[in-house]
Amino acid sequence: MLSPMTDAALQDPQLRPFLPILYLAWADGDLTREEVGALQQRIVESPWLDAKARTQLAAWLDVDAPPSPQQLQSWLAATRTSAATLAESERHSIAAMAGALSTQDAAAFASVVEALGLEGLSVAALFSAAGASDGAESGPPAPAFDARFDPDAMRAALEPEWMEARTIARTFLADPAHRLDRTRPYGERRERVLELLQILTDRGIGAMAYPGITSEDENMGPFMAAFETLGYGDLDLLVKMGVHFGLFGGSVFFLGTKKHHDAYVRDIASLKLPGCFAMTELGHGSNVMGLETTATYDPETDEIVVHTPSESARKEWIGNAALHAKMATVFAQLVVNGETHGVHAILVRIRDDEGNPTEGVRLGDCGYKLGLNGVDNGRIWFDHVRVPRDNLLDRYGSITDEGAYASPIPSQSRRFFTMLGTLVAGRVCVASGSVSASKVGLAIALRYGASRRQFGEPGKPEMRLWQYPAHRRRLVPMLAQGLAAHFAVAKARRMFLDQEPGGDSREVEMFAAAAKVFGTDHATMSLQACREACGGQGYLAANRIGPLKSDSDVFTTFEGDNTVLLQLVAKARLSDFKRQFRDSQVLGVLRFITDKAGRHWNQSNPIARRLRSEEHLRSREFVRGALELRESSLVESVARRIQSRTKSGMNVADAFLGVQNHVLAMARATMERLVFDAFADGVSAAEDTQVRAALDQALDLFGLWRIEADVGWFLENDIFESAKATAIRDEVDELIDEVGSNALGFCEAFGIPDECLAAPIAFLDPGERLK
Amino acid sequence: MLSPMTDAALQDPQLRPFLPILYLAWADGDLTREEVGALQQRIVESPWLDAKARTQLAAWLDVDAPPSPQQLQSWLAATRTSAATLAESERHSIAAMAGALSTQDAAAFASVVEALGLEGLSVAALFSAAGASDGAESGPPAPAFDARFDPDAMRAALEPEWMEARTIARTFLADPAHRLDRTRPYGERRERVLELLQILTDRGIGAMAYPGITSEDENMGPFMAAFETLGYGDLDLLVKMGVHFGLFGGSVFFLGTKKHHDAYVRDIASLKLPGCFAMTELGHGSNVMGLETTATYDPETDEIVVHTPSESARKEWIGNAALHAKMATVFAQLVVNGETHGVHAILVRIRDDEGNPTEGVRLGDCGYKLGLNGVDNGRIWFDHVRVPRDNLLDRYGSITDEGAYASPIPSQSRRFFTMLGTLVAGRVCVASGSVSASKVGLAIALRYGASRRQFGEPGKPEMRLWQYPAHRRRLVPMLAQGLAAHFAVAKARRMFLDQEPGGDSREVEMFAAAAKVFGTDHATMSLQACREACGGQGYLAANRIGPLKSDSDVFTTFEGDNTVLLQLVAKARLSDFKRQFRDSQVLGVLRFITDKAGRHWNQSNPIARRLRSEEHLRSREFVRGALELRESSLVESVARRIQSRTKSGMNVADAFLGVQNHVLAMARATMERLVFDAFADGVSAAEDTQVRAALDQALDLFGLWRIEADVGWFLENDIFESAKATAIRDEVDELIDEVGSNALGFCEAFGIPDECLAAPIAFLDPGERLK
Repeated sequence: MLSPMTDAALQDPQLRPFLPILYLAWADGDLTREEVGALQQRIVESPWLDAKARTQLAAWLDVDAPPSPQQLQSWLAATRTSAATLAESERHSIAAMAGALSTQDAAAFASVVEALGLEGLSVAALFSAAGASDGAESGPPAPAFDARFDPDAMRAALEPEWMEARTIARTFLADPAHRLDRTRPYGERRERVLELLQILTDRGIGAMAYPGITSEDENMGPFMAAFETLGYGDLDLLVKMGVHFGLFGGSVFFLGTKKHHDAYVRDIASLKLPGCFAMTELGHGSNVMGLETTATYDPETDEIVVHTPSESARKEWIGNAALHAKMATVFAQLVVNGETHGVHAILVRIRDDEGNPTEGVRLGDCGYKLGLNGVDNGRIWFDHVRVPRDNLLDRYGSITDEGAYASPIPSQSRRFFTMLGTLVAGRVCVASGSVSASKVGLAIALRYGASRRQFGEPGKPEMRLWQYPAHRRRLVPMLAQGLAAHFAVAKARRMFLDQEPGGDSREVEMFAAAAKVFGTDHATMSLQACREACGGQGYLAANRIGPLKSDSDVFTTFEGDNTVLLQLVAKARLSDFKRQFRDSQVLGVLRFITDKAGRHWNQSNPIARRLRSEEHLRSREFVRGALELRESSLVESVARRIQSRTKSGMNVADAFLGVQNHVLAMARATMERLVFDAFADGVSAAEDTQVRAALDQALDLFGLWRIEADVGWFLENDIFESAKATAIRDEVDELIDEVGSNALGFCEAFGIPDECLAAPIAFLDPGERLK
Repeated sequence: MLSPMTDAALQDPQLRPFLPILYLAWADGDLTREEVGALQQRIVESPWLDAKARTQLAAWLDVDAPPSPQQLQSWLAATRTSAATLAESERHSIAAMAGALSTQDAAAFASVVEALGLEGLSVAALFSAAGASDGAESGPPAPAFDARFDPDAMRAALEPEWMEARTIARTFLADPAHRLDRTRPYGERRERVLELLQILTDRGIGAMAYPGITSEDENMGPFMAAFETLGYGDLDLLVKMGVHFGLFGGSVFFLGTKKHHDAYVRDIASLKLPGCFAMTELGHGSNVMGLETTATYDPETDEIVVHTPSESARKEWIGNAALHAKMATVFAQLVVNGETHGVHAILVRIRDDEGNPTEGVRLGDCGYKLGLNGVDNGRIWFDHVRVPRDNLLDRYGSITDEGAYASPIPSQSRRFFTMLGTLVAGRVCVASGSVSASKVGLAIALRYGASRRQFGEPGKPEMRLWQYPAHRRRLVPMLAQGLAAHFAVAKARRMFLDQEPGGDSREVEMFAAAAKVFGTDHATMSLQACREACGGQGYLAANRIGPLKSDSDVFTTFEGDNTVLLQLVAKARLSDFKRQFRDSQVLGVLRFITDKAGRHWNQSNPIARRLRSEEHLRSREFVRGALELRESSLVESVARRIQSRTKSGMNVADAFLGVQNHVLAMARATMERLVFDAFADGVSAAEDTQVRAALDQALDLFGLWRIEADVGWFLENDIFESAKATAIRDEVDELIDEVGSNALGFCEAFGIPDECLAAPIAFLDPGERLK
């Protein structure tokens, strides 16, 4: 097919070295006249070219007669043939290759290559369709998956207790019949979730929720562990379970007294009496204290009258209310003898045994949502609904037989917060479910990235996504953050379970709020990252990541909106700060001065500002110290800002609001330090050396990555020098690769049943996956 | 109800000033023994208290006998009565109030208040249930909504052309019957989307896509403007429209020649011939060059044989393929006479007129997705499917009557990228749809925040969400970013439309890639922020934000994955950089030295490092200069890193990959500078002075907010001093309030039909909304 003239030219040893250059020059795009000019100049300067070669080169370089596709192919073929004889070292750059193909000095070609701007082009492109793979991988090496720990030992560190309850949950999840079919019509899906909840209940999950009544367990630990594990499955079921057993059942258990326990708890535990938790109102989401629904005691009939006085007082978003709940715990302003005693909880039947609304109760359906469409969120209106006085859940506030209000807690606001304290278990559970959901997303994305290939050197298998640094940057810090969230949730649960009845619950509430914000924000962030890292596959419902994202998205809002909870953390932290001064004036001032001195030393110590050895950057002293320093500086600065505002006459609420963005930054810094400490405690508790080492590395990554994310603050406050910021970034990259090599090991240790990873992409080419 | 003794005590002028303090102390929580001790100490130190008062105070402070709820109420009531006589200035703090109620010096109570840690408590809490609102708002003032421009004039600046096409789209959207019902079963929804597309088509939208054939328009501008406007509606319809008219029809229009235009374009424009764009394969998403499907020319029958050689070669994710497409543009490796000529496009009938798969074609359904479930994404397998030679879309590569391959573009890779260039229009459209979707989300969230109330001072209406600085921080920068994205998309569209046929398209491709990444990332980010800012209401499908988020989520992935496109931007930017050196050695070096000198001056000039006046921070010179400096520094540093790797023998691809995270940071910096420039051009083009001023402010906010987000980089590179970083943050806060006051005006200027804001929360208490 080639003309004899051209064919001969291809074998001319003078022209041969130019062929790869010409091929790349033309194939790279149209040659510009300037480029041709440059090339012709070099040709003139090459005294070793004979006249025939010069003529041929000029023809090949005619911008008005570009080579045909066949001609390009022929140059390529000739190049391949001649280059086959070259050593690897002679093929590393186009100039070197041309030099090696010539009898002349390689340097002669370097300037030609440079003039054409071809230095950058891959020589490998010349061997594109050259034939079969040589078995070698494309691209640079990535950290191999080589977990340096026994996954079972890791599991023991992550799940040190309540294995029986977890096993019940895992066995349930391992049955593919227990997965929801998202393509089923809306109504069917909601019924199916109730059926699944009944199956779980029949296996004893419900009974675990009420230790001392329906279980012999010491506390709610087993229930909470089962809940956490069920977060690997469909979140509709998890939320339905949380609403019925946790919120509704929990309100009867915690806010009720023996008469309520005797009358209802067994039926709640068996799901015979499905219920809902009617707290939120249309006009009152976060501000529960401002609820409008009234519960007025009528001494004439010894009844309580529950009433919705306005449209903004309708109960809204109530899970289980649209279809299934028969009873509601209604939060309302209790009015006794004309006096309002604040928000109390009253049990109200909202559906009869046939499922019809009871008298005076109107029910509505919130309708389609972004996710969790298997949960029937509804609305409730009460029109002077009468219930017996006994329906008041009266642990913290009761109506005496004489018709008077009585409470062991005199302060209305204190009583209110004590009742709200029952939400703590719910917050811990939501956080644990979030973390489990994100573990599933990460496991699927990490497995996909380990086998999915995209792009690479011609003639070799394409590169795995895992080989891309950007892919690892996206996912590995999320894994470390997920582990941090795991231990933060575990600590919050432990604090909740260890709480003394009637003791000061503020610390538990603060920590639970921090864990809830951290865990749910983590789920939103990490599942979004997983979705994007898996491309279109992450968008298919069958691969689970998409549904997990949209189902868990509301977790940052319900059970306490994250922005509101962060302010709770901030207020608690500011109170601590204030108390530090107050407790003992002298001692406080002394301590303050000592702290200041310590800080000052730390800030101005050039070693700490400049030090950037790996040993230093990974030391607990540095990482924890930096997180603590940021926290205490922000607390002090927020306190100072609020004080200067109140001093000039502003009320505290306005002063607090005026610096809201600072307050939130301070709360986040506090939260990250609390989470870091919880993670560090978890690391210390691990018994196995290798497990401890792997967790320790993940802890380093988590801490340094958070510092890196806020490096502007450390630089702005002159705590780091620039070089230290750079060193931290490099160290984070190294840690990503180190922790990354354990990534699949961690996923295995999570013990997610294969059925929950039932995403096709999690099982792509299993034989092919990187080991 | 009170005992006479207590009743008398309440009226004791000596005790009266202690009542508010006691109330707050007990209501705040249980008093600790330490606190009681401190208080008793003060009492002993108050010589003016008589014995009776001391005894009463001791009783009230008995930690073992806390006050009853009734007692607390009585203290509160007594406080209210006596405080009613006080002037406002005497009520600002609890200590001042106690002082004013006493005959003694106010200072006497300050230490009591301090000892109890009550300084912070709001005096307003004492007047909590004190009665009706006094009409004043709770909380600090927020920027009022007071658009300082005429919304119509703003609209003219945002939409300077193609109003006719936009009006057709708006009229369509204004009909509530054209909204999708998301609760309908899956299958029904997909049919409904096709019906809606037919309605749109009958109104002439399809014809606009093919200027010169089915429209008299000069170019695709009107079609693209209609597409942008339709982004206010349901995205399923938008995507279905993009797939059929844009991708499928566009491939015939751009890659085909007259014979194809004559045979198909009219039927495509009328939707008589629904089609799909079969490019992506299961194993080849981003790496289109590596597609496996083959199209082999058979000279015996003069046909092309289209074949799927392996499972990874099946066509995947193909919109319209699962149900409705009758024809597919199939991208496959064209083989002529045993030689492969790279990827080409071939038309293949995949369904007959009755909708059954044609011979050799197997079709599948991708199934349920995170969103866009009204679009039927499918899979296609070809088993040696034969089509006439004429079905090759042969603008850039043809098979001659003699059976030889011919192309006006000799280089295979150049040809490939020319064909891919037809994707540019699609990228611009996806970006425009993203920006429109996010405008809807922002309009709904901003309107909700303007009326929704949550928390506030007792006795006053609750505060509006808009009054919370954190709420404004969440949404207003997103509005500014949305405007930036709007103008970036407009510029990309203009560049695409102004492109010379056959001219150098690299700049257009780079800019379109940047606009696509920026616009789609913006949609993901801003819709997530809107969802969270609207709490539970943002989660209800009826309020649109949730569905807009899940439907648009895949926009960052399709039509070019954002991470891949960012690398395209990076490569183009690096080529520019290289060309700068190459064009003219001397000139280049000179320019480089000048730049360096300029930079050096800038970096070390203490005025620029320290300057922090509002005038300076809002100057175009500073903002644009900072963005440009960051970009050029990163380009230089990436180039240096790549070069040092290639010098030590690494091939360019590996070198590029090794610094991938740096490359992406550089690409983002380039993108943000490009977007900033496009926004600035848009500002300059606005004719109305007030419009220009408002846009200018939004531009300042966008630029400074991006600098703030990356302030660590500027500090690390010693470009800013710390004080400047702080000043930038303060300036961003001020700009948020200034731009915020225009927020509802911008939303009005977007011209979103009310039916598209059909979210109940967008119309909450309209009379109540802040003006």
